[in-house]
Amino acid sequence: MTKPAPSHLAYVPFVSVENMMKLVHHIGIEPMLKGLAEYIEQDFRRWDLFDKTPRVASHSKEGVIELMPTSDGEVYGFKYVNGHPKNTQEGLQTVTAFGLLATVDTGYPVLLSEMTVLTALRTAATSAMVAKHLAPKGSRVMAMIGNGAQSEFQALAMRVICGIDRLRLYDIDRAATDKTVRNLQGFGFTLEPCSSPQEAIEGAQIITTCTADKQYATILTDNMVGAGVHINAIGGDCPGKTELHPDILTRSSVFVEYPPQTRIEGEIQQMPADFAVTEMWQVINGTAKGRTDDRQITLFDGVGFAIEDFSALRYVRDQLRDTGLYQDLDMIADPDNPRDLFGMVQRAKPR
Amino acid sequence: MTKPAPSHLAYVPFVSVENMMKLVHHIGIEPMLKGLAEYIEQDFRRWDLFDKTPRVASHSKEGVIELMPTSDGEVYGFKYVNGHPKNTQEGLQTVTAFGLLATVDTGYPVLLSEMTVLTALRTAATSAMVAKHLAPKGSRVMAMIGNGAQSEFQALAMRVICGIDRLRLYDIDRAATDKTVRNLQGFGFTLEPCSSPQEAIEGAQIITTCTADKQYATILTDNMVGAGVHINAIGGDCPGKTELHPDILTRSSVFVEYPPQTRIEGEIQQMPADFAVTEMWQVINGTAKGRTDDRQITLFDGVGFAIEDFSALRYVRDQLRDTGLYQDLDMIADPDNPRDLFGMVQRAKPR
Repeated sequence: MTKPAPSHLAYVPFVSVENMMKLVHHIGIEPMLKGLAEYIEQDFRRWDLFDKTPRVASHSKEGVIELMPTSDGEVYGFKYVNGHPKNTQEGLQTVTAFGLLATVDTGYPVLLSEMTVLTALRTAATSAMVAKHLAPKGSRVMAMIGNGAQSEFQALAMRVICGIDRLRLYDIDRAATDKTVRNLQGFGFTLEPCSSPQEAIEGAQIITTCTADKQYATILTDNMVGAGVHINAIGGDCPGKTELHPDILTRSSVFVEYPPQTRIEGEIQQMPADFAVTEMWQVINGTAKGRTDDRQITLFDGVGFAIEDFSALRYVRDQLRDTGLYQDLDMIADPDNPRDLFGMVQRAKPR
Repeated sequence: MTKPAPSHLAYVPFVSVENMMKLVHHIGIEPMLKGLAEYIEQDFRRWDLFDKTPRVASHSKEGVIELMPTSDGEVYGFKYVNGHPKNTQEGLQTVTAFGLLATVDTGYPVLLSEMTVLTALRTAATSAMVAKHLAPKGSRVMAMIGNGAQSEFQALAMRVICGIDRLRLYDIDRAATDKTVRNLQGFGFTLEPCSSPQEAIEGAQIITTCTADKQYATILTDNMVGAGVHINAIGGDCPGKTELHPDILTRSSVFVEYPPQTRIEGEIQQMPADFAVTEMWQVINGTAKGRTDDRQITLFDGVGFAIEDFSALRYVRDQLRDTGLYQDLDMIADPDNPRDLFGMVQRAKPR
């Protein structure tokens, strides 16, 4: 008797880091950012449908490990993500991530994917999708303060989705700016390294802050920010980590993903619990106002929410059939008779 | 320039269903059940150390998908598990599961494993480890009521850990009993199929109930249960699913894993919220009493807790080096410079 192969349901498609990178090049990074932004925008439109659980965090003195689950009633997804600021000193990533989709109807997993690269893409796609709704029309200049791992992804998403073609770059470490300038050659930007945040924001319609220090920092002070700009504040994303002076928040219209999470993790952790914010999904589905005035400062206090990961996994899943960029993992036991798991194990005995 | 291979940290060892079954045969199912019971007992002894989160459940009308995380401060683990009773009608498993271990210090995953087979093994190992502490000394006869997927694992664990060598088997579906009898040939049991629960428990020192109906059922009524027995009640494991008449609970000393979870999912969901129970870990570490009297009925109201999955994953991880029964998954992005994720993606571009 030959050992029967597991049925197709026993296999879970797995997208490795290598296949994720191949997928980026197969589709092209700019079309992929655009595609991700479309999936994210679709899910913001139907935000109300989703099961929204707070992150399930396991804290230690070195960092945090989180599970971020959500479901739209048909598909369930979760992301595993860690945050360990001291990892870089040991040559490791601060953040690593992977994610899973499953069918709600059966509970069977249908996709396992690396999400370190994918999270960088979805974070940039979310920022640009939000800026499309909030930034001044015809924005072409972005200040990019913080030139770490997220900066190039932000720049390209803002280019393909919002039309940004001039970048004013600043980082406390000039080597980081040099790296970003090097990486963005050939993508059609005018690249302008700057020697202070003040200099970087001159003439910018969009200001992106994406710095990595885990502390209350003040990257931007109130007197630096002129009327009419859009601030894309994505570096402050955990308790005790902010980038903006509270006076900027007071002068701005603040837009968030999911208030219960943003009040803990975002820039608005500095503000009272009743500080007024607008939920971004309501702007997108037309039930709340976005920018109403040319002189208004709009501020996206982005911390990253489970639904964006769900959208990104959904996008990746939809590319699998055409690209074949995955491996089948034998992850689900599949006995012929569900009551005979023991028999399945016994029949696998080597002769 | 050749593309550098990811470092060893970028790889996560993955134990597939096939490799889990090979592991069972490499070690032998009985030594493996014994090994698992030892790991579980070790973790019950240091129960207080663990971060104990309730399950994170996503309910739908068809079933439930749960994440069960825990941590001992050095290692973090979680299990993904679904429960979809209607799946069997479609030829699918009611329950599928996989699990992960990670290092708390770095947040990096160190093991991904199938857990459908492993959960069956750990459930049996837990039952037998508990029975070792609570069942009458010298027990040799077990009644096994419910002869589904868990029955053979329970029988073998009770044999290797408690010395059970005579099994009295009953299931509402005789075909299930026949399957269990067939599967347990050659393991040294006297196998006695019975035509009623009443008949099955005659002469048994241990009574295991493991039926699958999702409803309030009464597999055992009070007048059936004689003095001095140990009841291993593991079939009732979700709200609305119980197996025992409440009068049996009143007459018994009830032992549980984690009271907040068992009061929702276990047999004691039928009882008032202050119904007295003993936490099993306290019996094992000597801070609470187990069996104190030959005529006492001890009852383990087992629902399955995250720490048991953690112990099982820890056991599997410790076997990997010697057996090599795993695949390396390229799951963690590993740029040479953590700030240059984009550069890593760009360098992977096909020429």
